[in-house]
Amino acid sequence: MKNTVLNALKNYVQVNEEEGEAFISILKEKKLKRKEQLIRQGDVCDFAVFIFKGCLRYYYIQNGEDCTGQFFFENGWYSDYESFLSGNPSIQNIEALEDCVLYAFTRKDLENLYIEFPVFERFGRLMAERAVLGLMKKNEILSIYTHEERYLQLITERPKVIERVSLKHIASYLGMKPESLSRIRSRLSKKQNS
Amino acid sequence: MKNTVLNALKNYVQVNEEEGEAFISILKEKKLKRKEQLIRQGDVCDFAVFIFKGCLRYYYIQNGEDCTGQFFFENGWYSDYESFLSGNPSIQNIEALEDCVLYAFTRKDLENLYIEFPVFERFGRLMAERAVLGLMKKNEILSIYTHEERYLQLITERPKVIERVSLKHIASYLGMKPESLSRIRSRLSKKQNS
Repeated sequence: MKNTVLNALKNYVQVNEEEGEAFISILKEKKLKRKEQLIRQGDVCDFAVFIFKGCLRYYYIQNGEDCTGQFFFENGWYSDYESFLSGNPSIQNIEALEDCVLYAFTRKDLENLYIEFPVFERFGRLMAERAVLGLMKKNEILSIYTHEERYLQLITERPKVIERVSLKHIASYLGMKPESLSRIRSRLSKKQNS
Repeated sequence: MKNTVLNALKNYVQVNEEEGEAFISILKEKKLKRKEQLIRQGDVCDFAVFIFKGCLRYYYIQNGEDCTGQFFFENGWYSDYESFLSGNPSIQNIEALEDCVLYAFTRKDLENLYIEFPVFERFGRLMAERAVLGLMKKNEILSIYTHEERYLQLITERPKVIERVSLKHIASYLGMKPESLSRIRSRLSKKQNS
């Protein structure tokens, strides 16, 4: 796992051996079975994880309905930033959509790294910037695109979601009813075959 | 203005005199008249601004309708993060709701500061983290709260918006029609008076 984590880290920053080892030393393995929860609404999320294997889904309950906020796959990172940064209870629920192997690190350990090795300030900045871009992209999709455009964009930009996530969760992620997604899929399939 | 900017900077990081001067040296004054645009959809936003005076509104056009994304006030910072970080054309429109005095700095100048003075990496990280929190808060409000709860929260947490922004823009920021906001306001006012 060490090399996988270091490679994922090096997508953001160049670390030397000492810095790499320091990062590895703060990680704790966490295994989740499919459908197991990593966070429940009300928990404080004082950690972030590197996803070594598997897929996580973030959802919240709105008017009694399960609404999907985001999906996170292997080689990616996840934290409830709001709770992680503020220490407030999370409004998120995070469940494993597949059996997962995660490597978790606490906010406290990361902050110690910021002080000891300034390269992790850059890592933290780039992670936060990436989170901003992800949130803005999601908001853009939901505010500007039609249902069909949203689905087509997902096919092009995030094929893993299409391949590994149930249609029910894809529909709620795209802000539509499962029936609407089915109609769009059958319309697109007819277009392809005609 | 120098002291105001340095104080705003010091809300995030402790800078020494040299670092403070280096930051001041990359700023360029920009004045906007009320209703003037800082960014139009399609522009690349390769700069960020410190708002010395005035108020900005970010909006986008959805199905021909003007939808307010956010308001930014004096002593705050603004950039279209997505365009700033990616170099892609902005989907945002930014207009001055009042006469504004801004101090702008380019992405290139900020990146030079990151290299020259590592304290600005921390500044960049904290700014990005704040942007994440702002976006998550906005999403939380729109996805979980009722119209009335949204308005009550705005009164409590952002009185400046209530005092200085027109009801039309407040309604679109809260994701409701102006008529709904009027009904909520008159209902609340009756409650207060009874």
